[in-house]
Amino acid sequence: MLKSNMNGKRILAFGAHPDDIEFGCGALLLDAGEQGARLDLAVLSRGEAGTHGDRSTREEEARQAAAMLGAEIHFPSTAGDTRIRADLDATLLAAKMIRRLRPDLILAPSGHSNQHPDHRETSRIVRDAQRLARYGKTPGLEDVDPHATYSLLFYDISSEALGTDGLTPILVDVSSQVEQWKVLMSCHSSQVRNLDYIDLQLSRARALGIRMGVASALRLYSEGPLLVGSAEELGALKGPRM
Amino acid sequence: MLKSNMNGKRILAFGAHPDDIEFGCGALLLDAGEQGARLDLAVLSRGEAGTHGDRSTREEEARQAAAMLGAEIHFPSTAGDTRIRADLDATLLAAKMIRRLRPDLILAPSGHSNQHPDHRETSRIVRDAQRLARYGKTPGLEDVDPHATYSLLFYDISSEALGTDGLTPILVDVSSQVEQWKVLMSCHSSQVRNLDYIDLQLSRARALGIRMGVASALRLYSEGPLLVGSAEELGALKGPRM
Amino acid sequence: MLKSNMNGKRILAFGAHPDDIEFGCGALLLDAGEQGARLDLAVLSRGEAGTHGDRSTREEEARQAAAMLGAEIHFPSTAGDTRIRADLDATLLAAKMIRRLRPDLILAPSGHSNQHPDHRETSRIVRDAQRLARYGKTPGLEDVDPHATYSLLFYDISSEALGTDGLTPILVDVSSQVEQWKVLMSCHSSQVRNLDYIDLQLSRARALGIRMGVASALRLYSEGPLLVGSAEELGALKGPRM
Amino acid sequence: MLKSNMNGKRILAFGAHPDDIEFGCGALLLDAGEQGARLDLAVLSRGEAGTHGDRSTREEEARQAAAMLGAEIHFPSTAGDTRIRADLDATLLAAKMIRRLRPDLILAPSGHSNQHPDHRETSRIVRDAQRLARYGKTPGLEDVDPHATYSLLFYDISSEALGTDGLTPILVDVSSQVEQWKVLMSCHSSQVRNLDYIDLQLSRARALGIRMGVASALRLYSEGPLLVGSAEELGALKGPRM
Amino acid sequence: MLKSNMNGKRILAFGAHPDDIEFGCGALLLDAGEQGARLDLAVLSRGEAGTHGDRSTREEEARQAAAMLGAEIHFPSTAGDTRIRADLDATLLAAKMIRRLRPDLILAPSGHSNQHPDHRETSRIVRDAQRLARYGKTPGLEDVDPHATYSLLFYDISSEALGTDGLTPILVDVSSQVEQWKVLMSCHSSQVRNLDYIDLQLSRARALGIRMGVASALRLYSEGPLLVGSAEELGALKGPRM
Amino acid sequence: MLKSNMNGKRILAFGAHPDDIEFGCGALLLDAGEQGARLDLAVLSRGEAGTHGDRSTREEEARQAAAMLGAEIHFPSTAGDTRIRADLDATLLAAKMIRRLRPDLILAPSGHSNQHPDHRETSRIVRDAQRLARYGKTPGLEDVDPHATYSLLFYDISSEALGTDGLTPILVDVSSQVEQWKVLMSCHSSQVRNLDYIDLQLSRARALGIRMGVASALRLYSEGPLLVGSAEELGALKGPRM
Repeated sequence: MLKSNMNGKRILAFGAHPDDIEFGCGALLLDAGEQGARLDLAVLSRGEAGTHGDRSTREEEARQAAAMLGAEIHFPSTAGDTRIRADLDATLLAAKMIRRLRPDLILAPSGHSNQHPDHRETSRIVRDAQRLARYGKTPGLEDVDPHATYSLLFYDISSEALGTDGLTPILVDVSSQVEQWKVLMSCHSSQVRNLDYIDLQLSRARALGIRMGVASALRLYSEGPLLVGSAEELGALKGPRM
Repeated sequence: MLKSNMNGKRILAFGAHPDDIEFGCGALLLDAGEQGARLDLAVLSRGEAGTHGDRSTREEEARQAAAMLGAEIHFPSTAGDTRIRADLDATLLAAKMIRRLRPDLILAPSGHSNQHPDHRETSRIVRDAQRLARYGKTPGLEDVDPHATYSLLFYDISSEALGTDGLTPILVDVSSQVEQWKVLMSCHSSQVRNLDYIDLQLSRARALGIRMGVASALRLYSEGPLLVGSAEELGALKGPRM
Repeated sequence: MLKSNMNGKRILAFGAHPDDIEFGCGALLLDAGEQGARLDLAVLSRGEAGTHGDRSTREEEARQAAAMLGAEIHFPSTAGDTRIRADLDATLLAAKMIRRLRPDLILAPSGHSNQHPDHRETSRIVRDAQRLARYGKTPGLEDVDPHATYSLLFYDISSEALGTDGLTPILVDVSSQVEQWKVLMSCHSSQVRNLDYIDLQLSRARALGIRMGVASALRLYSEGPLLVGSAEELGALKGPRM
Repeated sequence: MLKSNMNGKRILAFGAHPDDIEFGCGALLLDAGEQGARLDLAVLSRGEAGTHGDRSTREEEARQAAAMLGAEIHFPSTAGDTRIRADLDATLLAAKMIRRLRPDLILAPSGHSNQHPDHRETSRIVRDAQRLARYGKTPGLEDVDPHATYSLLFYDISSEALGTDGLTPILVDVSSQVEQWKVLMSCHSSQVRNLDYIDLQLSRARALGIRMGVASALRLYSEGPLLVGSAEELGALKGPRM
Repeated sequence: MLKSNMNGKRILAFGAHPDDIEFGCGALLLDAGEQGARLDLAVLSRGEAGTHGDRSTREEEARQAAAMLGAEIHFPSTAGDTRIRADLDATLLAAKMIRRLRPDLILAPSGHSNQHPDHRETSRIVRDAQRLARYGKTPGLEDVDPHATYSLLFYDISSEALGTDGLTPILVDVSSQVEQWKVLMSCHSSQVRNLDYIDLQLSRARALGIRMGVASALRLYSEGPLLVGSAEELGALKGPRM
Repeated sequence: MLKSNMNGKRILAFGAHPDDIEFGCGALLLDAGEQGARLDLAVLSRGEAGTHGDRSTREEEARQAAAMLGAEIHFPSTAGDTRIRADLDATLLAAKMIRRLRPDLILAPSGHSNQHPDHRETSRIVRDAQRLARYGKTPGLEDVDPHATYSLLFYDISSEALGTDGLTPILVDVSSQVEQWKVLMSCHSSQVRNLDYIDLQLSRARALGIRMGVASALRLYSEGPLLVGSAEELGALKGPRM
């Protein structure tokens, strides 16, 4: 039986390379998809500069993962792997996607500096795009209606944004998705010959989960604080057990 | 008609002086009370060292505020105003209250150092008490069953904890409670001859609220990260508008 | 009777949009103007991408506000609203203004990332421009003499820079300017149909002021520490009351 | 064949409860012991307030673990589990141990506030004791010669000190000790009925290790910066791979 | 000719050991004394636990330094060297001094944890004492009138508070006092056999000074932000040159 | 007699202007060179926009300093002084140098924002270049084999990176190099007419050294944590003495 609590909700996840989204927040997307949310993935390169895999292999792997998620995948045209830059063109392109898809929640890589430059730049593109998508007369976006999404959360790919200025962490229980998440990450078979990348995600989520009293938890970050609507909603948030 | 979404939920709020709780998180308690939560207030002194008001006046004011909240008020026996210390006795006393009252959510002053020493010490007492209340064989607590509360949130009284190591802020929309909150704070008439204290809370909540897109918001803090249970719950959290 | 303590002093304030300066540091400029300082405002766009108001309306509003301040207003030619970028051209343009106007104090938006991208970029432009203005042989600035301003302070527009790496906050008592500041902000009538923007500034300044023992205070930031000249000057700085 | 690179070196590790040392830095001690270092463990309580296990069981488990490490174990007399306080008596007791054992390296729990109060207090005891052990005429320590140890490193037990003011993290490759570490932690059988505690340590070390390009790494912290003796020694330190 | 700009101003400096004040903020006191401020020094021990010097020698050295400063020196009765604790008795003692001496500016050691425990504890004593001195009915202080000092600044002795939560640094130009400061520190001849302690202060002040464009600068810290009274006063603060 | 512990090791140091490397990390390079390391210096401009010195003078000074270090100096072609930008071209150029020279350790200016923009941009160029140099198929780098350097350390030139997000400081004892370092910095005679720049480095290193118990220490920073290989190597790191 299908859960439908998120029916009508849309999530748009951005990644720099074909595997970033699945590694960074795949467990969350599996959960959201299961609950009926509509998922869109925007992948800004084919990972064609990476040591392993080539352009077409990696695109194909991303398509498989998207299929498993029940997500629509998009490959907007950018300068490509190692060349992604948070310039105006890339930002307007992302803003246009946001206006067209009108997501309730946007996901992007965390933007701390100590990681692949493409991750950082993608983060900045999305952060700015989310704002440009709102303003009534942004030049270059005239042909699509403005759209305001106030839920923008960042996910870690390799290193952690923790400790970065002005980010508020928020954890999500993904215990029920761990097995599926592993399968999902494995779609990127050119990248996971050795299992270190998968293990990084799983062991990080496991360590976070244990501290919070669940089997596995994913850490996301908001730029700025988060708001709940009432005392009741506040009561649903749990602090650490350890 | 009474809302009852928090029926069966218990909140235990600690304060150092008779007015700390109402000033620091009164708007939240008004909301929770309205939704059916049972409220207990533990006030660690009668504010007898303050410049204005005396022991009995201030106790009476606190009882009026508690009555308005529909809360039960407790005055556990401590060393008193300006003398509150996070020593073992005070901590065990607070832990015993937690074990007896078995709250779902505990509230305490934020514990940064730049404020009245009693606020800081009360914060430390409650933080440790929440832990000692859990352990199976804590000496001195043998006669009450252990109780684990994983929701412990801190509120600001005068200065702000913001920027303090390891605290995660979380905001609550209190727009619907502003008028009542003002009345609630005014119960402490010996403290509010001039309206600066009330104005501090209201203008802070107003500034925070505007940034988040609501009329008024209260900032609380968790020591350590917060966890939501699912993608759906995550979607209910909103980021800043400005 | 005119006060003249700042006679001969020049302040150059930069903003990205027509209302940024008045909202961010209008109260300070009112005070400085009253004391005889000469004020220049450099506005890097006409706010033409905003949801409300158009190019000419907004320029007109800015001119009104400048007139009220007794300031000269400049609209240096940039890529325009939503397109401001801290590239070399924009930086040299700002540096040239600094060399020509030779200010004693420069004001710019704070540059944290969680805000309108134009605010952040303007902040970076001015920070770099202040340095390029100093160096003896900066290419592109040969035709104006170098000028070194060591007072560069940043102001908040919407979200707060507080907590950002390496910024030192400094508060200014603006209690005597609150009423005029309100009028000044109201010059931007296309932006203040509802009064939330004005209220954000006033309630933030009010909350800061109460903590410092005055009616209203404006928070500015220096990148790096601030220096006073002697024990006597140090004695004039006041710490928080709460 | 025995490695002997650390022959003549002494390490003194402090813990609040019988299992803290093995969970927090057991892998490091296994490595040091294997290289010939002499190990002393100072355990400040028998964990008698814990939910699982009793006084004598837990002491026995700690003795087994110490035996596996080839370490001498000490149970200095303190106020006991949940009652450890960084008061003068406890600090002098620890300082006396430091003077008598004359360690080259001291290990203690990290002292951030969001954890079992005994961990935090033990951290503070050791931090101060390390200093009191040095001063020539510390009252109460007259009968043992001063001893200065400049290597004091802190280990995490449950939550992480990361992000705490003024701590410098340093990671150690413990890849070769993972299997033995698991056995060592398992000595505390009353505490590990479910394997979450062991898993927390292993998954945390695994995640850290992968980021650094090794199988498993332990994070320690120095209060204040760390110094290497030369360019050559600097070259032996490796930064992150991801 | 005597400068008298600080005539009528009183400064009360606290130190844990006989040389802390002169090393930590001697240059500032020399400047203030020269400008006519009245200086009081409160030294909480005779440094009797130190490796070098004994009780009477060190008291005598402190008296010489005080004489050079033209300051009155006080040795309030505490638990003594290595035993200073921020308990209620010590705090009330310091609060009583503040009420009696009614200083305009209070100076105390910075309270970060990585230093001699007595420095940290003295810092905490003074921080709390400054607050208890204000409250109208603080028990134990009934016989002296309340006194509010809102200028409380912290100085570094050995390690630096820089980076500590919630501290705002402020630098003072002490270029004109460097030679005298050296003489002042040299009064503590039992402590300065080798010149490292003096060199630490001078080289730190020199490095800070160069960055700010003066010969030598002392760094102090406020807990919480600092307020200036007007745009004019703001203009007197200078930012870094480098 | 020549020391040869670093024989076969290569260090590549980047600087924005002809004197940055010698001022920022000259003492370290002197030590490494003495121990047999091969040194390469990459200088991204001739400092032609500076107030003092001209293009050819400054290049000549840099060549003298390089000669004293026994280093090979490179002047890769960039946009020049005040115009260095972390764009793709500059990053690929630096990445190509890394691939060709295959260093074991890379040094670059620290990248905090409050300094000459060229320093910050050079820092970012090198940080990204170190990553692009590794990836198997980075477009634009096809003709040189990938090279992974995991030791990338940042040095301060004028202001300090201390306190910047995510940087781990590490100090090196440079006591034995102080005299030579002074001579090395003096090679840049057009920049050191007054001795403030040299004094800034020496007094900073002196203050750091005293705190660590050596005569002089240089502070470097790693982006992300540092790893040692074993308990033995960990034992070689020393914490602060003060």
